Amino acid sequence: MPNSVYKIIELVGSSSTSWEEATNNAVVKASQSLRDLRICEVVKLDTKIEDGKIVAYRARVQLSFKYGNE
Amino acid sequence: MPNSVYKIIELVGSSSTSWEEATNNAVVKASQSLRDLRICEVVKLDTKIEDGKIVAYRARVQLSFKYGNE
Amino acid sequence: MPNSVYKIIELVGSSSTSWEEATNNAVVKASQSLRDLRICEVVKLDTKIEDGKIVAYRARVQLSFKYGNE
Amino acid sequence: MPNSVYKIIELVGSSSTSWEEATNNAVVKASQSLRDLRICEVVKLDTKIEDGKIVAYRARVQLSFKYGNE
Amino acid sequence: MPNSVYKIIELVGSSSTSWEEATNNAVVKASQSLRDLRICEVVKLDTKIEDGKIVAYRARVQLSFKYGNE
Amino acid sequence: MPNSVYKIIELVGSSSTSWEEATNNAVVKASQSLRDLRICEVVKLDTKIEDGKIVAYRARVQLSFKYGNE
Amino acid sequence: MPNSVYKIIELVGSSSTSWEEATNNAVVKASQSLRDLRICEVVKLDTKIEDGKIVAYRARVQLSFKYGNE
Amino acid sequence: MPNSVYKIIELVGSSSTSWEEATNNAVVKASQSLRDLRICEVVKLDTKIEDGKIVAYRARVQLSFKYGNE
Amino acid sequence: MPNSVYKIIELVGSSSTSWEEATNNAVVKASQSLRDLRICEVVKLDTKIEDGKIVAYRARVQLSFKYGNE
Amino acid sequence: MPNSVYKIIELVGSSSTSWEEATNNAVVKASQSLRDLRICEVVKLDTKIEDGKIVAYRARVQLSFKYGNE
Amino acid sequence: MPNSVYKIIELVGSSSTSWEEATNNAVVKASQSLRDLRICEVVKLDTKIEDGKIVAYRARVQLSFKYGNE
Amino acid sequence: MPNSVYKIIELVGSSSTSWEEATNNAVVKASQSLRDLRICEVVKLDTKIEDGKIVAYRARVQLSFKYGNE
Repeated sequence: MPNSVYKIIELVGSSSTSWEEATNNAVVKASQSLRDLRICEVVKLDTKIEDGKIVAYRARVQLSFKYGNE
Repeated sequence: MPNSVYKIIELVGSSSTSWEEATNNAVVKASQSLRDLRICEVVKLDTKIEDGKIVAYRARVQLSFKYGNE
Repeated sequence: MPNSVYKIIELVGSSSTSWEEATNNAVVKASQSLRDLRICEVVKLDTKIEDGKIVAYRARVQLSFKYGNE
Repeated sequence: MPNSVYKIIELVGSSSTSWEEATNNAVVKASQSLRDLRICEVVKLDTKIEDGKIVAYRARVQLSFKYGNE
Repeated sequence: MPNSVYKIIELVGSSSTSWEEATNNAVVKASQSLRDLRICEVVKLDTKIEDGKIVAYRARVQLSFKYGNE
Repeated sequence: MPNSVYKIIELVGSSSTSWEEATNNAVVKASQSLRDLRICEVVKLDTKIEDGKIVAYRARVQLSFKYGNE
Repeated sequence: MPNSVYKIIELVGSSSTSWEEATNNAVVKASQSLRDLRICEVVKLDTKIEDGKIVAYRARVQLSFKYGNE
Repeated sequence: MPNSVYKIIELVGSSSTSWEEATNNAVVKASQSLRDLRICEVVKLDTKIEDGKIVAYRARVQLSFKYGNE
Repeated sequence: MPNSVYKIIELVGSSSTSWEEATNNAVVKASQSLRDLRICEVVKLDTKIEDGKIVAYRARVQLSFKYGNE
Repeated sequence: MPNSVYKIIELVGSSSTSWEEATNNAVVKASQSLRDLRICEVVKLDTKIEDGKIVAYRARVQLSFKYGNE
Repeated sequence: MPNSVYKIIELVGSSSTSWEEATNNAVVKASQSLRDLRICEVVKLDTKIEDGKIVAYRARVQLSFKYGNE
Repeated sequence: MPNSVYKIIELVGSSSTSWEEATNNAVVKASQSLRDLRICEVVKLDTKIEDGKIVAYRARVQLSFKYGNE
């Protein structure tokens, strides 16, 4: 990693079953347009509720990747 | 949402299998007495250990719902 | 204030024009059922956007009042 | 603790002598109406001053208890 | 919101009159190139001072929108 | 700004109408005795309540100015 | 718990499937050399990504146990 | 409190017996040169240790008083 | 202190009477196996409650000492 | 700065010698595609270690620049 | 340190070469009017950029010194 | 990194010239007894002052290494 620069973006992934899948959905989506994804840090976890039931697990994450590969 | 007011309460849910279920247990319990639950934010995750084994996954969460519906 | 105990609750007020009015809406609503409100601290400010326009200024606040007056 | 849900409320206790007594005053007051109090976490400590003298030690605390026992 | 992914960007809006207008200026600017803006959270408020007078109210905000619509 | 040193002080301004005016009141007061005020960062916003009504919007701010000009 | 002292250490567990298993892996490893483990608090969650895919869920946790049992 | 401005300063008080006395020592010292002290918030508590024994309880506190009365 | 390195460990001390004694208990216990203890910073204060009464004041502290003296 | 809007991005720069150079590397890289860079705030500093030696000083920074100049 | 009281002030030092020099500049400036400076804690590091180049490394620091020696 | 567990310890390194050297001193000391050091995160930077001059730059860091290699 000699002097390479990384960029960090923030995404919110969503899933009806788990925060792992919500995070994975964000990573999969990002990997369609970004290369050299490296680490994905969780910033916040929450759930959306409708009619008294959890309808979505959401993970707010920060993804780092080599800058210039957008 | 014209001028409606929401209230936020803090609960700790518990489960022997996952933090998703721990969170769901808190939401299910709250929905028995509160209506219009909207969002459930995770404040803290931990586990209880007995005899070197995890016996409970616990999620401390903040639940928002329309104020006056308690 | 000799040994009196205060309670703190968290509300989210909303307004189409300002965070001051959003906060005031939360206070007005709370004062209908709570007495001896004392201080209202801002925890978070955000806005809701629809069609590229701000439709609501929201203030998440913590209200303190004499415990036992609920 | 199989799947039981706990609630957390925030109180401010006050004492003319110490933060321990201020915290104890909040716990004693809460235990008059809540059962199964478990843990009391300190969120903030401050003092009120009049005429250059401390007149009250105040402890802002979060109390957890079994939800449904209010 | 089945499995859709949101992105969050951070902007600083500015106004000579209020933080609400500063926030609105950031939203208006962003809505020129981004679609499906949803929520705008305030991260920091400050003011710029010249000759002992406030010349700008500034709001640092985080804007979320559907990822892929940039 | 070659090697100049700035000092930061913390003030609480108050107003019956808005947090902008509360902040401005703190800046106006400080500019009577301090020169080269540069930036004023908001640390905390709250309101004082009497008889169920907001009587003061208060802004706790950090003011920076060239050190040595006190 | 009369006057006993607890120690807290920080570990990072890893798993290819979930943060629960990552946490459990840290607890299992620690219980090989430490007795009287009590609570395990999550400090941070992240994932490692290779070739655009999540290869490890990692949980940074704080484990408490009776001091002197190392 | 019509439009009055308060200033906040940070002190570290010290005592060989308790954090309450450490805080009180800071307040007493400040009240020798400042008037209208109002509130003293605890920012941090620590102790100094010599030869394996606590020799001082220290309280880092923020004191507010009417600005202009220094 | 020319280039010496210090280590910091985290302990939880407990007492039935005060947080000062809880902290002291942690320091006394640590000084049995560690030399050159220097500073003990409070990270968190809480209390354990049984039958509506405080049975233990607990202080979570960080202790620094010369590294290599364990 | 009448009503102009700034954007903030997060980068991680790296250097084998210092955090200043790591930060500078991030700024140099960013200035190749962004104009009107204004301020670069440090969010986090760390180092990468291989074979017991520091091989890279890394600085995670937030860069602000006039929005629309990407 | 028997019962002596320390004060903490916040300064921003600046340098064209490093954060160490920026911090040193703040300390040197403060030591011209304050005696018994003891510790200087870094609160924030940033850089000022002009024409795509870093022109100043800035360190925001908190300086403690014996209260009454101003 | 299949299911391996890492431990994190906190050290304070010191140097008369820079925070990079202070950090390096902590890493060098740790690598004498720990293997597989991986990352060293800065938690806090400060300086010690004597006679109005900086005599030591100190870096409080968190070091991670493979658990079981102590």
